Amino acid sequence: MKICRFHKDRIGLVQDDEVVDVTSALDLLPQLRYPLPRHDPLIAHLDQLKEAFLVAARTGERRPVRELAFDSPVANPGKLVAAPVNYVKHLEEARAQKDLHQGNAAQVRVIHETGLFLKATSSLIGPSEPVTLRFPDRRSDHEIELAVIIGKRADRVSAERALEYVAGYAIGLDMTVRGAEERSMRKSIDSYSVLGPWLVTADEITDPSQLDFELKVDGVTRQKANTRDLVLSVPELIEMASRFYTLEVGDVIFTGTPEGVGQIEPGNKIHAWIDRIGSMEIDVT
Amino acid sequence: MKICRFHKDRIGLVQDDEVVDVTSALDLLPQLRYPLPRHDPLIAHLDQLKEAFLVAARTGERRPVRELAFDSPVANPGKLVAAPVNYVKHLEEARAQKDLHQGNAAQVRVIHETGLFLKATSSLIGPSEPVTLRFPDRRSDHEIELAVIIGKRADRVSAERALEYVAGYAIGLDMTVRGAEERSMRKSIDSYSVLGPWLVTADEITDPSQLDFELKVDGVTRQKANTRDLVLSVPELIEMASRFYTLEVGDVIFTGTPEGVGQIEPGNKIHAWIDRIGSMEIDVT
Repeated sequence: MKICRFHKDRIGLVQDDEVVDVTSALDLLPQLRYPLPRHDPLIAHLDQLKEAFLVAARTGERRPVRELAFDSPVANPGKLVAAPVNYVKHLEEARAQKDLHQGNAAQVRVIHETGLFLKATSSLIGPSEPVTLRFPDRRSDHEIELAVIIGKRADRVSAERALEYVAGYAIGLDMTVRGAEERSMRKSIDSYSVLGPWLVTADEITDPSQLDFELKVDGVTRQKANTRDLVLSVPELIEMASRFYTLEVGDVIFTGTPEGVGQIEPGNKIHAWIDRIGSMEIDVT
Repeated sequence: MKICRFHKDRIGLVQDDEVVDVTSALDLLPQLRYPLPRHDPLIAHLDQLKEAFLVAARTGERRPVRELAFDSPVANPGKLVAAPVNYVKHLEEARAQKDLHQGNAAQVRVIHETGLFLKATSSLIGPSEPVTLRFPDRRSDHEIELAVIIGKRADRVSAERALEYVAGYAIGLDMTVRGAEERSMRKSIDSYSVLGPWLVTADEITDPSQLDFELKVDGVTRQKANTRDLVLSVPELIEMASRFYTLEVGDVIFTGTPEGVGQIEPGNKIHAWIDRIGSMEIDVT
């Protein structure tokens, strides 16, 4: 099932080239009062909602995908976790630039040593909004990544069982301004985390380690890779993250980007595609 | 006004050595539905609530402070921002350990270069819960800090106007496991961010740059300083943070810790005090 948010307050199912409006199913969700839960309410009720979505889809209004503006499929993530240098070819680039005496083991330790970082939830947008460059005099780069949406509270979960904790997948863009600041600041600028175009439930992607993906800027391919080249796989990332902190329902893991990151400028159009998920286009302003 | 959360779902005003229960005033807060706002609902309605708290306090039940277990005074922060090395004496320590050819300017650039980092909201507790050490074979340290709670959405705010955006202050503990990982991971372990014992509204602390504070472990003083020694002051931290990302209502800034950080072990009792706020005791397990 492909679940989208569009026009700010609508929920839809994506079926071929159409979206069927199933917003009425949200009546199932509880009214909430302060203090609020730490999870995303839609993802937390996904099992019940799936059935209600199918019922609502029988009579819901249908509109072409191309006419709609999509918001982040996760509205209320508790945290955005992200992996630094996590692709073999990106590692090879780094390795080539480093002391030749450092062997493979030293390089592969990089992500094991640095661990994961956080991106501010205030930076999250969907493809309906542009990425707005914050510091015109500094270089900002695109980074396409497979994004994993947590579906079940995960505390110290082993890699072997990790996929049981996944609600679904989406395309993530981990936009970055280059500089000396900590990643959790440079990558947390408003609009520098894009999630979209929709959430594909985990039952449709039983193996997230075999997905082709590609990013183009103004029609020119910049990044093209397959998730099989991840240094730490999706299950291993969940194991690593949940060893440090509890992953709440609706938390998102950006799994890292392959080689080919490059500068973007106002007026650029970013086209991002991941096999079995779909594609989205984002304006840069 | 000193506003506390206690026993998970109660709100109180702290008056001398007593807490008066004003939970009934929360009826003012709106019922919420998905998608949820990115702000903390209590802080977002603080002006209205203050009046309602005073009305409720006339008839609310009174109980001694020492009998109550306090939760984080902010229940739903969108993000926890924190400052690395931000005290002059901590800087001097670092300076002494570095290449003597680096002058003052190079060292003072440290926080300007590294910027701020994020802590996971899932790590947040109040003093009613213990800090639970996650990796017994690694060193975990205490760090006491003045915590600033944002009261008004802040996007690119100047230091001159920054204090207008503050709802109040609390004591923050930025617990840390030592190691090679990024700060946003090492400092985001469950229970490694403590906020308490209550929120003191900004009108009671018009100048946050003159506050004595002290942290003891099992009765022995470990950290003792004054916020006048901050490298970047509270207004400057708000300016720096809001230059990168929007600070939402209820976001918390941990302003950095002075020298004297040290190891904690299971069974320790941490006592933290900040002038004009109060004190709290936290167990380590």
